[in-house]
Amino acid sequence: MDTTPQEKTKIGLVGLGTVGSGVARILLDHGDRTARQAGRVLWLERASVRDLKKARDCNLPAGVLTDQIDAIVSDPSIDVVAELMGGVELAREVILSLLKAGKDVVTANKALIAAHGPELFDAAREAGRTIAFEAAVAGGVPIIANLTQCLSGNQVESLTGILNGTCNFILSKMHAEHVPYSEVIAEAQRLGYAEADPAMDVDGTDTAQKLAILAHLAFGARPDWRAIPRVGIDTLDLADVRMAQELGYTIKLLGVAELTEKGLQLSVGPTFVKNGSPMADVAGPMNAVRVTADAVGELFLQGPGAGQMPTASAVVADLIDTAVGRTKLTFQTLKLWSNESERTPVADQADAVARFYLRIDAADEPGVLAQIASALAAEGISIASFQQQASDAATVPLVLMTHDTTEGAAARACTAIGKLAPVAAAPVRLRVVG
Amino acid sequence: MDTTPQEKTKIGLVGLGTVGSGVARILLDHGDRTARQAGRVLWLERASVRDLKKARDCNLPAGVLTDQIDAIVSDPSIDVVAELMGGVELAREVILSLLKAGKDVVTANKALIAAHGPELFDAAREAGRTIAFEAAVAGGVPIIANLTQCLSGNQVESLTGILNGTCNFILSKMHAEHVPYSEVIAEAQRLGYAEADPAMDVDGTDTAQKLAILAHLAFGARPDWRAIPRVGIDTLDLADVRMAQELGYTIKLLGVAELTEKGLQLSVGPTFVKNGSPMADVAGPMNAVRVTADAVGELFLQGPGAGQMPTASAVVADLIDTAVGRTKLTFQTLKLWSNESERTPVADQADAVARFYLRIDAADEPGVLAQIASALAAEGISIASFQQQASDAATVPLVLMTHDTTEGAAARACTAIGKLAPVAAAPVRLRVVG
Ligand SMILES: NC(=O)c1ccc[n+]([C@@H]2O[C@H](COP(=O)([O-])OP(=O)(O)OC[C@H]3O[C@@H](n4cnc5c(N)ncnc54)[C@H](OP(=O)(O)O)[C@@H]3O)[C@@H](O)[C@H]2O)c1
Ligand SMILES: NC(=O)c1ccc[n+]([C@@H]2O[C@H](COP(=O)([O-])OP(=O)(O)OC[C@H]3O[C@@H](n4cnc5c(N)ncnc54)[C@H](OP(=O)(O)O)[C@@H]3O)[C@@H](O)[C@H]2O)c1
Repeated sequence: MDTTPQEKTKIGLVGLGTVGSGVARILLDHGDRTARQAGRVLWLERASVRDLKKARDCNLPAGVLTDQIDAIVSDPSIDVVAELMGGVELAREVILSLLKAGKDVVTANKALIAAHGPELFDAAREAGRTIAFEAAVAGGVPIIANLTQCLSGNQVESLTGILNGTCNFILSKMHAEHVPYSEVIAEAQRLGYAEADPAMDVDGTDTAQKLAILAHLAFGARPDWRAIPRVGIDTLDLADVRMAQELGYTIKLLGVAELTEKGLQLSVGPTFVKNGSPMADVAGPMNAVRVTADAVGELFLQGPGAGQMPTASAVVADLIDTAVGRTKLTFQTLKLWSNESERTPVADQADAVARFYLRIDAADEPGVLAQIASALAAEGISIASFQQQASDAATVPLVLMTHDTTEGAAARACTAIGKLAPVAAAPVRLRVVG
Repeated sequence: MDTTPQEKTKIGLVGLGTVGSGVARILLDHGDRTARQAGRVLWLERASVRDLKKARDCNLPAGVLTDQIDAIVSDPSIDVVAELMGGVELAREVILSLLKAGKDVVTANKALIAAHGPELFDAAREAGRTIAFEAAVAGGVPIIANLTQCLSGNQVESLTGILNGTCNFILSKMHAEHVPYSEVIAEAQRLGYAEADPAMDVDGTDTAQKLAILAHLAFGARPDWRAIPRVGIDTLDLADVRMAQELGYTIKLLGVAELTEKGLQLSVGPTFVKNGSPMADVAGPMNAVRVTADAVGELFLQGPGAGQMPTASAVVADLIDTAVGRTKLTFQTLKLWSNESERTPVADQADAVARFYLRIDAADEPGVLAQIASALAAEGISIASFQQQASDAATVPLVLMTHDTTEGAAARACTAIGKLAPVAAAPVRLRVVG
């Protein structure tokens, strides 16, 4: 049998909520496993919370729980700390003090990294410490290790991800049961797949933050997530879900990064994904990432993007990597968010080449199609397919799929179409892939 | 821009065939990339081949090529050597001398590791050196890093893989075009998807060797690949492919490792995989691995399992990990193939619980079904569905799907059925998953 290693790495957890207590459970219940994988004991020394009286989802030994974050920061015996409290400002301050106190940090906080990556990583370098953040993107899917280590011999060419489990859960329901967004979101909240305030998930913010992180890792780009063009699923109409299905597609909220001659194209939005591709089949709260790269060709990863134990799986892998010393080597080598200039500039979204699905609600009268077709032709957009639905209503939905065009041309054409007299509103415009 | 790192790690390649010249191309053409990822220059110092006159798929600087393996072994300036010659005995000797000469080793040679893992890893530990072998299993799919690092907080519960691209290519063709095995294999050889002697691929040997390696990494088991029950695709009948499709399945050559109360169940064979699952959709020469584990739940990886650049992608990742020092930490910690006793015993295949597809060619006469049903009942096997095909021939195919039973019971029942007077031959028996 294994001999028990004697050396200890003492762990602190700042935050013992959903993720924190999952991490604590692995550390407390599976010490043999983490010791074997780390070659040393990972010892849970301290865990801080707001409310000492709350019931916790793990059996903490006496003396571990504290409501003083500083009890962790100022304990010189603690080597590695996982920040699992969430939020941005306090988390930032806590991590800066942890680094200054000589501790390596692990975090699951993508909002924090998206907002303050450069400052935090500089501080870690200055203190000679490390930050690991596998859990911050795609939860249990180890996309960060795969990009930074496993694909290190490659130039990544594109990255496409379903990065928000809440949105994928909602979209899966909308496709399977034809229930409108407003109803599904309520159910998702009830089942714990959506937070009480799901705005950041459903409006694409969360996906944009994760995409910005991945774009830095995969391309050395330094996009501001706020500048990534994004559309959420909160405005998605059931009519478009039905149309997608009729046409052989599934609508997914995709984050896309694509290397082009003009730089890195980034976007977030509901997208028509051709059925039969693995990405179209990703169901429920799963996440998935497809990477194309010059040597490997294509790599596809799928797994749970959130949830207590999948996220804890990623945090514990980081704790082990940090205890073993792998994190330090990777961190020193890759110089993430350093003041080196960006390797790949972010391109103008207007130049992004894509195909589009357009749905145009227009009065059922002669000449409408001709007007729409000439608005598209004026932007050099050619039509791949066209469908007109029978309807009893005053307006009929016209559905078009375009050939390759640019975001800019498509946006201009849609603006022009929206202004046509027989057209009721700006067209619905969604990207098409596969 | 990046400052060019000054430190060099000198690389030797033993073998410059398909994979070797792919590795050389990345090292020679993308030195900026490997230097950025490794924090030091990866310098291709020497590459050895049998035949100096053969055309090579890369632009080697003068002085790199040699037909003396010893020119690499005895060059003290070379730090890391990739063994990319293949074969077992000479490769083993070369790696042992490389380790003795103080070099870290990278290899893509699963046959070698499956045969001599313990000896080689002991020699590396003794010499204070490392062996990395990401390319040895599933080519461009980084399953080894994912198992040994990314899932380190988990207990793996099962692992299912399409681990041989040649077989998956052949099976995909058989499904898409209903061409028999014998014809597809010829085409696969023409296209370079199958070797001149494809026996080790199509009889399941290659999959069993890879599964044995993964079983060691994921479960700490130490199976002899020769003892893994295996069936190849070379005996697969087109009739069963058609039946699978009718029933909503796709036949895949799966390697399966499953942790049960009785130990680790291992098997290799053509398997009915339910359509709609990602594994059923893996097409052409792709590989895929599905891992279930207690924290993460389920992780699915798919990518090219072989080919020049995908395999080179894995080899270069190992070269970079070795140059950075990550490999050393992992190697020291995990004690792979050490003389520690196995953590998980291999279970008796007869106890493996599974569902089966049975096809029985029997004379079209009264009472046949009753005899078959009682042979199954005698082993406690219950029938989930049954189908009899119309046929003009003297015998008709009877197709059965069983409920869960054991391999042992299914094998005994099939032996008994094969002996029934109206039954022409031993039944075809394939596992069913999903
Ligand atoms: N949940 C997921 O599936 C998931 C997935 C990926 C990433 N993440 C990320 O993981 C992090 C943690 O998420 P979570 O779901 O575990 O959150 P959570 O359940 O709300 O837990 C937060 C924990 O931090 C403590 N905390 C919060 N604010 C604090 C403050 N001002 N001072 C001291 N302690 C404070 C809380 O204490 P009390 O318990 O006393 O309230 C609680 O223990 C977030 O960054 C999140 O984005 C979560
Ligand atoms: N090909 C793939 O897609 C793939 C995928 C995964 C793993 N692998 C593994 O990678 C390894 C290499 O495969 P490969 O396809 O690159 O093989 P390959 O094309 O046959 O290349 C073998 C190389 O080794 C040299 N060599 C062979 N025997 C030798 C000997 N006795 N003395 C000196 N040099 C010798 C050959 O020299 P000459 O060039 O002068 O003949 C050639 O350069 C194998 O272990 C294989 O299992 C291959």
